[in-house]
Amino acid sequence: MNKPHIALIGLGLIGSSLGHAFKKYELTDHISGYARSPETRARARELGFVDAVHDSAAGAADGADVVFLNVPLSAMAPLAEDIMPVLKSGAVLTDVGSVKQCVLDDILPLLKDGVFLVPGHPIAGTEYSGPDAGFAELFEGRWCILTPPGETNLHAVETVAGLWRDIGSEVEFMDARHHDLVLAITSHLPHLIAFNIVGTAAQLESDTRSAVIKYSASGFRDFTRIAASDPIMWRDIFLKNKEAVLEMLGRFNEDLVALQRAIRHGDADYLQNTFSQTREIRQSVIDAGQDVDAPNFGRDLPSKPDAG
Amino acid sequence: MNKPHIALIGLGLIGSSLGHAFKKYELTDHISGYARSPETRARARELGFVDAVHDSAAGAADGADVVFLNVPLSAMAPLAEDIMPVLKSGAVLTDVGSVKQCVLDDILPLLKDGVFLVPGHPIAGTEYSGPDAGFAELFEGRWCILTPPGETNLHAVETVAGLWRDIGSEVEFMDARHHDLVLAITSHLPHLIAFNIVGTAAQLESDTRSAVIKYSASGFRDFTRIAASDPIMWRDIFLKNKEAVLEMLGRFNEDLVALQRAIRHGDADYLQNTFSQTREIRQSVIDAGQDVDAPNFGRDLPSKPDAG
Repeated sequence: MNKPHIALIGLGLIGSSLGHAFKKYELTDHISGYARSPETRARARELGFVDAVHDSAAGAADGADVVFLNVPLSAMAPLAEDIMPVLKSGAVLTDVGSVKQCVLDDILPLLKDGVFLVPGHPIAGTEYSGPDAGFAELFEGRWCILTPPGETNLHAVETVAGLWRDIGSEVEFMDARHHDLVLAITSHLPHLIAFNIVGTAAQLESDTRSAVIKYSASGFRDFTRIAASDPIMWRDIFLKNKEAVLEMLGRFNEDLVALQRAIRHGDADYLQNTFSQTREIRQSVIDAGQDVDAPNFGRDLPSKPDAG
Repeated sequence: MNKPHIALIGLGLIGSSLGHAFKKYELTDHISGYARSPETRARARELGFVDAVHDSAAGAADGADVVFLNVPLSAMAPLAEDIMPVLKSGAVLTDVGSVKQCVLDDILPLLKDGVFLVPGHPIAGTEYSGPDAGFAELFEGRWCILTPPGETNLHAVETVAGLWRDIGSEVEFMDARHHDLVLAITSHLPHLIAFNIVGTAAQLESDTRSAVIKYSASGFRDFTRIAASDPIMWRDIFLKNKEAVLEMLGRFNEDLVALQRAIRHGDADYLQNTFSQTREIRQSVIDAGQDVDAPNFGRDLPSKPDAG
């Protein structure tokens, strides 16, 4: 079988990492690329993780066997519409967005006959953005969740799953709505909370704010790292996963009010019991191999945990 | 000048790390120790980071030049009362608690003539507890904040400051109430939020909970690490820093409600602006040398950031 021609639409952290990874494992015949910003396109030409950088999405998608949309969620449908006329029969369209039902809802109606959609979400990322942030090992040992529509082409699904497996990911299939609910609590809500607490600190009186930065190593520092993630990507995640995020935020708020009351009324037992229960979840995470019980928490590995 | 006899009351993560560090740098003539639990005392005898383990706090404090209270905040005053009769004239009493005004309020009235109180707070820790968790390098390159009372003995202050500097810490002096306000936002609120979000996840339906653990690397994982910290220590921190924590929690909640409304009403500009501002705080943290702009975030260093 011939190696596929892959098109990367969007050349930021994920797009550039895909390019590096596909080249590292020699999985493609040709990689074409497109990014909206001329600066990113120029930089991608210099870095060489794609074979040809085009000045339009359609130019990059023309003749491709597999097209990856690596763009903020709000840009997915407009780009899919742009490239649809040039997609060849049998082409597979996939994406790396952090919310999945909206990708199905937005793009399925745009598909022409003979083009197949297999939405995907690699659970991998860093707080850095842009074409210089990518590296081939980003996806190694990480989950990639695929949420194909109910009626689909199995060959298309296998093509996308195979590419992810070949660059080191573990592929799982999931219902798109279930994915969005799980990610709302594991990723979207933690990011919202981190953005919020760093924002609260930013509004403190300036002398207190200086001390907050100076003593940030007491816990706050980890939140600033999460809150440094790409603003547009995250804006779109919250808008596109609104229902699940609001549902989880509602539960979070109820629980937080209960803790707040316990602090105000000095309910020591409630606090201690709550804080003891959370240790069990931590142990489950370690048992599941998602973190290591060691001083550096596996963070000397090249791949890092804060993807959307 | 003779090296001091140091007493360590409390032999968990901080107490054992102090013992290891004082021995590594040969700063003491003798280290006596006490812990409430017989198991901890037995383990401390085996590990050898103190010279003598006593079965009472008074036994350990008898004849000591400097006494460190390394216990949850609610245990500070009872222990200070216990040991006061045996403390010699000129003895210095210090602590490592994460809230400082309460230590002044609780212990100053108990002091007898000739005994001096110099409260302290090392900004260092891990999520592990107990005598096996300690290591000599825990305090290296970390801040230690001292909050001596208005009227005090300068020699006592210099003794405590000197010991922290000799084990690698950078000593800063601060007003106790200002310390408590700063730590409320940098440490106490982040921990409360982490405990809370992990608690919210623990109450999800079991199939969703399994998926949450499986895909925890998308952000949630870091919160489970913070939420694995010692429940009793943290219970006491929230009860003893009630006013500052409730104040910061109030501000946090106001900001979170604004984000929640923006999500519900689809206010893309508000979300993007909020998420952009938080990046600047992150850059300040990096500029202040409190984190590094590198893939492993300095987490291959032996000391770690999540102290109270």
